[in-house]
Amino acid sequence: MPGIEKLPIEETLEDSPQTRSLLGVFEEDTAAISNYCTQLYQAMHRIYDAQNELSAATHLTSRLLKEYDKQRFPLGGDDEVMSSTLQQFAKVIDELSSCHAVLSTQLADAMMFPITQFKERDLKEILTLKEVFQIASDDHDTAINRYSRLSKKRDNDKVRAEAVEDVYTSRKKQHQTMMHYFCSLNTLQYKKKTALLEPLLGYMQAQISFFKLGSENLTQQWEDFLGTIGTSVQKHIFMSCTQEP
Amino acid sequence: MPGIEKLPIEETLEDSPQTRSLLGVFEEDTAAISNYCTQLYQAMHRIYDAQNELSAATHLTSRLLKEYDKQRFPLGGDDEVMSSTLQQFAKVIDELSSCHAVLSTQLADAMMFPITQFKERDLKEILTLKEVFQIASDDHDTAINRYSRLSKKRDNDKVRAEAVEDVYTSRKKQHQTMMHYFCSLNTLQYKKKTALLEPLLGYMQAQISFFKLGSENLTQQWEDFLGTIGTSVQKHIFMSCTQEP
Repeated sequence: MPGIEKLPIEETLEDSPQTRSLLGVFEEDTAAISNYCTQLYQAMHRIYDAQNELSAATHLTSRLLKEYDKQRFPLGGDDEVMSSTLQQFAKVIDELSSCHAVLSTQLADAMMFPITQFKERDLKEILTLKEVFQIASDDHDTAINRYSRLSKKRDNDKVRAEAVEDVYTSRKKQHQTMMHYFCSLNTLQYKKKTALLEPLLGYMQAQISFFKLGSENLTQQWEDFLGTIGTSVQKHIFMSCTQEP
Repeated sequence: MPGIEKLPIEETLEDSPQTRSLLGVFEEDTAAISNYCTQLYQAMHRIYDAQNELSAATHLTSRLLKEYDKQRFPLGGDDEVMSSTLQQFAKVIDELSSCHAVLSTQLADAMMFPITQFKERDLKEILTLKEVFQIASDDHDTAINRYSRLSKKRDNDKVRAEAVEDVYTSRKKQHQTMMHYFCSLNTLQYKKKTALLEPLLGYMQAQISFFKLGSENLTQQWEDFLGTIGTSVQKHIFMSCTQEP
């Protein structure tokens, strides 16, 4: 694995055309990373939202089944069997919805958090520094122009001194902001891979523990439960048929 | 389990107040079932929609990872490691999205289909028969009124015969529709429990096979995969650090 490319901080004082063109390449790369990460962020947000909606809908279904007893059915003659069955369904579906809730939380912490941090903090910081650097460069150019105009028509020393001072401070400012900007562009090169991999690892880990939770804790007891339900439903259908007028 | 209550079809000809009040009870019970089933139908539809959205979002994420190679990163020096890693992620996430797709299909067939059938076919049929019966009853009342008015002022035999004929046919019509209506109200009493239990059983079965598919086919290979990724990411971070300027 070859080394990661860097913008030479030591070149910021000289600020040569070569440095500027290299900066252009880094800015282009950053834009591409930013664009790709934003797409991935949106896709992951869709997964996250869908997962939350799934938990909510599963929970609602379980609640509806719990509320079966509260319904007023004038012909609810043999509702004891039915309501106890629905209570069991409510219980297992509620357990499933808690598994979904756990998954949602894990996705929030291990997937959405890192990619949101990268998008909202690291990538935003670079945009801010780019603007700050742009402003500093413009101020510097203005100072240079003012100085060059001065130097033609012989002005008094006070105004000249001001202009020199102005060029000095603005160049100093530009140099500092440029160093900051280069630093964060370099840092992004180190961060970009982990920024993509971390949320994916988080996503996979969350899915794995979801399946483990589901298969280990739920599946077996569900199957036992369904076995009993299955027979009781069969029995019910059979009895209904035998009772047909 | 006590027997299921029935509307006495044999009473439809006499159509006594007792039969009518019993009909009222059955209609009330049907309304309650219909209301409860509609709520459950909506909750299940939310689950179904969320599940579909989850499959779609998972598939999109996998597609985005596949497209990483197509991105143009000017500084993509050591992208071989990265892109192969993301291809592996794309592969396993794609497998997961197929599991989700299977689950969606099973939910459609085993949960949404039966409850939709019950809602759209059985419950709708009863509403239709109720209207038809209402119309037939109104026609019968009109015929009776016309006949009674006739019988006061002595009319000619032709008109009287027509009125008698009218009463006869309308009563016959009302009797037939009432029998149909009673039949389908009785049938609903036999169907109502299985109508609730069948989609729930379908839902549970779908969830169980989803967890089995996930835990048996995916979890192990994912963990192996994550093991390798984990180390390579560690390695990457380590190398990045050692390369820090």
